[in-house]
Amino acid sequence: MAASAPPASDLEAQIAELTTKVHELKTSKQPFQAEQKQLGELKRALNVSQGGGTKKESAGKGKLTLKTPKGTKDHGPSATLMRKQIFTTLEQIFLKHGACTIDTPVFELREILAGKYGEDSKLIYDLQDQGGELCSLRYDLTVPFARFLAMNQSTYPSIKRYHIGKVYRRDQPAMSKGRMREFYQCDFDIAGNFDTMVPDAEILCILVEALTALDIGEFTVKILDGIFQLAGVPADKIRSISSAVDKLDKSPWEEVRREMTVDKGLDGTIADRIGEYVKFKGPGKELLATLQADEKLMAVPSANEGLKEMGILFDYLEIFGVLGYMSFDMSLARGLDYYTGIIYEAVHASSAPPGISTTPAVPAASTIDPKKPKKKAAAAPGGDDAEEEIDESQIGVGSIAAGGRYDDLVGMFYEASGGKKGAGRIPCVGISVGVERVYSIMLAQRKAREEREGRGKETQVYVVAVGGDGLLKERMALVKQLWDAGIKAEFTYKAKPKLQAQFDTCDRDQTPLTVIIGPKELERGEVRVRRQVGKEAGAGEGELVQRDELVEYLKKEVLL
Amino acid sequence: MAASAPPASDLEAQIAELTTKVHELKTSKQPFQAEQKQLGELKRALNVSQGGGTKKESAGKGKLTLKTPKGTKDHGPSATLMRKQIFTTLEQIFLKHGACTIDTPVFELREILAGKYGEDSKLIYDLQDQGGELCSLRYDLTVPFARFLAMNQSTYPSIKRYHIGKVYRRDQPAMSKGRMREFYQCDFDIAGNFDTMVPDAEILCILVEALTALDIGEFTVKILDGIFQLAGVPADKIRSISSAVDKLDKSPWEEVRREMTVDKGLDGTIADRIGEYVKFKGPGKELLATLQADEKLMAVPSANEGLKEMGILFDYLEIFGVLGYMSFDMSLARGLDYYTGIIYEAVHASSAPPGISTTPAVPAASTIDPKKPKKKAAAAPGGDDAEEEIDESQIGVGSIAAGGRYDDLVGMFYEASGGKKGAGRIPCVGISVGVERVYSIMLAQRKAREEREGRGKETQVYVVAVGGDGLLKERMALVKQLWDAGIKAEFTYKAKPKLQAQFDTCDRDQTPLTVIIGPKELERGEVRVRRQVGKEAGAGEGELVQRDELVEYLKKEVLL
Repeated sequence: MAASAPPASDLEAQIAELTTKVHELKTSKQPFQAEQKQLGELKRALNVSQGGGTKKESAGKGKLTLKTPKGTKDHGPSATLMRKQIFTTLEQIFLKHGACTIDTPVFELREILAGKYGEDSKLIYDLQDQGGELCSLRYDLTVPFARFLAMNQSTYPSIKRYHIGKVYRRDQPAMSKGRMREFYQCDFDIAGNFDTMVPDAEILCILVEALTALDIGEFTVKILDGIFQLAGVPADKIRSISSAVDKLDKSPWEEVRREMTVDKGLDGTIADRIGEYVKFKGPGKELLATLQADEKLMAVPSANEGLKEMGILFDYLEIFGVLGYMSFDMSLARGLDYYTGIIYEAVHASSAPPGISTTPAVPAASTIDPKKPKKKAAAAPGGDDAEEEIDESQIGVGSIAAGGRYDDLVGMFYEASGGKKGAGRIPCVGISVGVERVYSIMLAQRKAREEREGRGKETQVYVVAVGGDGLLKERMALVKQLWDAGIKAEFTYKAKPKLQAQFDTCDRDQTPLTVIIGPKELERGEVRVRRQVGKEAGAGEGELVQRDELVEYLKKEVLL
Repeated sequence: MAASAPPASDLEAQIAELTTKVHELKTSKQPFQAEQKQLGELKRALNVSQGGGTKKESAGKGKLTLKTPKGTKDHGPSATLMRKQIFTTLEQIFLKHGACTIDTPVFELREILAGKYGEDSKLIYDLQDQGGELCSLRYDLTVPFARFLAMNQSTYPSIKRYHIGKVYRRDQPAMSKGRMREFYQCDFDIAGNFDTMVPDAEILCILVEALTALDIGEFTVKILDGIFQLAGVPADKIRSISSAVDKLDKSPWEEVRREMTVDKGLDGTIADRIGEYVKFKGPGKELLATLQADEKLMAVPSANEGLKEMGILFDYLEIFGVLGYMSFDMSLARGLDYYTGIIYEAVHASSAPPGISTTPAVPAASTIDPKKPKKKAAAAPGGDDAEEEIDESQIGVGSIAAGGRYDDLVGMFYEASGGKKGAGRIPCVGISVGVERVYSIMLAQRKAREEREGRGKETQVYVVAVGGDGLLKERMALVKQLWDAGIKAEFTYKAKPKLQAQFDTCDRDQTPLTVIIGPKELERGEVRVRRQVGKEAGAGEGELVQRDELVEYLKKEVLL
């Protein structure tokens, strides 16, 4: 970055803001051409600031490029604090349900990740072979969890755990929508041999409690169990057919049908049955009754079984009081290799593209699986690192949580490592909350309320000197007394600070109180306490308080 | 891992425990041969379980090795909870001092890390070149922080920030002492142009407050400013001489002197002056007075200036009430390239090898810089991945925190990226707490108190069914009511659970309370509440409580 150019992170923030604005203007059918032009200029500036598509060349000239790697970013104080608040909110829910947490390494042996992510395996980051083991950065938190369980069968035959951590995918980043190459995931999983649909129901209950606690607005949970069994897809074709149906949100039905029958050899009548089922969406119990009234369907044993299980799940969800949030959606499919049963995803009201509602009866054509970012068109010229041009105003935030049952993953690890066949099976069901999407929604809502940017720190008191020779040692003694009393306090490290500079710092940091000391007050054993924020802000010189009663005064009168 | 072999992580835990025991026996001069033999067996077992030195071969045979990469490990529930408690304790101190936190990516552009770590640069993990930018895992949190500041000069001309995160070093791991290839660091830094020694004093105050709050026992902080200036080392030789003196903890003085004079061309009289100074250790003010009484020394302008600054620092530390923790130690040196002024490290009472005390007057020959792990003898046969045989009983835990002033790092980035010379300088001073060492000490102390392993979860109530048909739906309805009231509650996912199995789960998880429901109680609108832990544990059938008064009862009477 040259001294004259604004930092890339500032530009990115401006671009994100302007993208949202253009989107809003378009949605409300207002003119948006001026804003779109400005957006283009900013994007070009960003390209220059980041060295554009010629990074390697400029690096060759010996000038250092000050930036974070493509698809990653620094989170500043208020962004980090907001993420921490999201984590704490989710953690409180998980702890309420008796969860523990574990912490696995950020990289795994490469062979552990191999064959778990289908086509997306190409997005895995590998560590360089520097002698020794071959490793890769984790792609999600699910596979490391299954590896952990397979290694510790005797200690954890069952476990309820959450894990909040960063995961890594070499995908085309889309900053303004929060899709990055490094991003947080927040997973909650229940592992163990239990009765049908009981842990599944608790997971969905937790999902509803968590999204409600985050207070980000309305959402719907789309669930599905065993559509392909219902339709009569042979067991060995379920994965490939599921991956085809997963493309329904971006390809027309005809194309998907062609892939299923021509490419993947599925019987045409079964394909057509799928085509019928994927239209079914709606409140669970009604849809279930419709399906169960279909005699032809109920004659298929697997369909009969599958629908019975859905009935059990709906009963449990009703007891937990969360059935109203559910939509039975037979168009739902997941691209990952390891899912084996029920799958679900939560869709936020803001997720649909402009003009498309998220009410259950309408196809939510734009939902994005957080565990499987959408592939975009071919990369723009400029090589792997050029930012892609995507009109993101046409894409919603996507699903904000997704998960499902993966009963075979732990056993697969166990057996592949030489364990006795069948002995190491631990069925699992889990949910992953898309932290970055939740963050984007929260930020947009905060901006919509035109709130000031959140505080990045929690300082309660700023100690200010008036006159004297800066009173550095007196300020130090006072602030130490406050720290020892557990009060969050700061002072300036300047020996002879200007009065206005000290008050400016308080304003910038939104520090609620100042304690002011001057030579006269000190002589009389007094200090002044002044409110800096709120309706009494800056009222005169503040209140006189005895120096030796200050801590008690702050604790009792002001910091309550 | 074969089904018959115990998991590697169990073995590692047993090895760590036995290593500690052997160490204790040796220290207290008791026989330890039997334990040492057992230790050898376990280590061989671990080698087998991990595929020993022939991992690549066995992988070739198609059998998966279930383990985490070398030098990394999974942290289970109670270990993760204990680390979280360490983080929270430290965070509370940092927040009290008005700090914010930022979050930078786990990998950086490779050129950002280049040239910052001297000889240790070879320990950096590189990401594979998969097209695009060349990246490496971060080696510490300091260099990314400086890069962040250089990129965001206008937004953060000064900042007080902490950052807790994992860092990565391809060093020879030593599990039992908590030295890993992936480990947490917890950094606190103050950046900005301020008056001499003011932020430095606050950093040292925070260090003392943090180590005191962690409650891990006695510690000493060794500090030093400008020994080489005092001795008259030319400015361009200070780095290489510092790196030589840093070897004093493992090489004799004669060898270090030879390196300084013969290899690095230092004047012999200056080397001898250093040799004299490194003997000086002790309480700050007395030592300072001794040095200031040395007329020859005070005639050197740089020495005069350096000692004046130390005097100012000691004054401030006295005001903050932490001077008593400090030891002025002229043998202290740091191997990192970026330090420019005052340096310090905190040494825990348990850090010295057996028989060597940590009182300031005695050389602490075994202290280990957490930012610069010690190099060991050549790797054992078996290649890069074979575990090394180190007699760790002869090594202390090492320093538990270290830091110093690095005034030029931000400016270096700024100028290297094309910024105007001198315009981007932001002086910094910081401290890094060795979280893994603190954790090791806490764990050893907990074990010494023979405490039961800490809980990994916080469940308050377990809902138990007696008789009936398992009462699954009734348990679900009850537990949901508790969740909605904010009570941390669990139930088993079995439809028809055995009574004893339910109580066994409570015992294992140390859950304090059970709420017991049976058909008769339900009919009468009652439940039983029973204490499972503590002195009233398991008293009979528990207390009868009206079902509709249960939540209030639990909140008021029992969960206080």
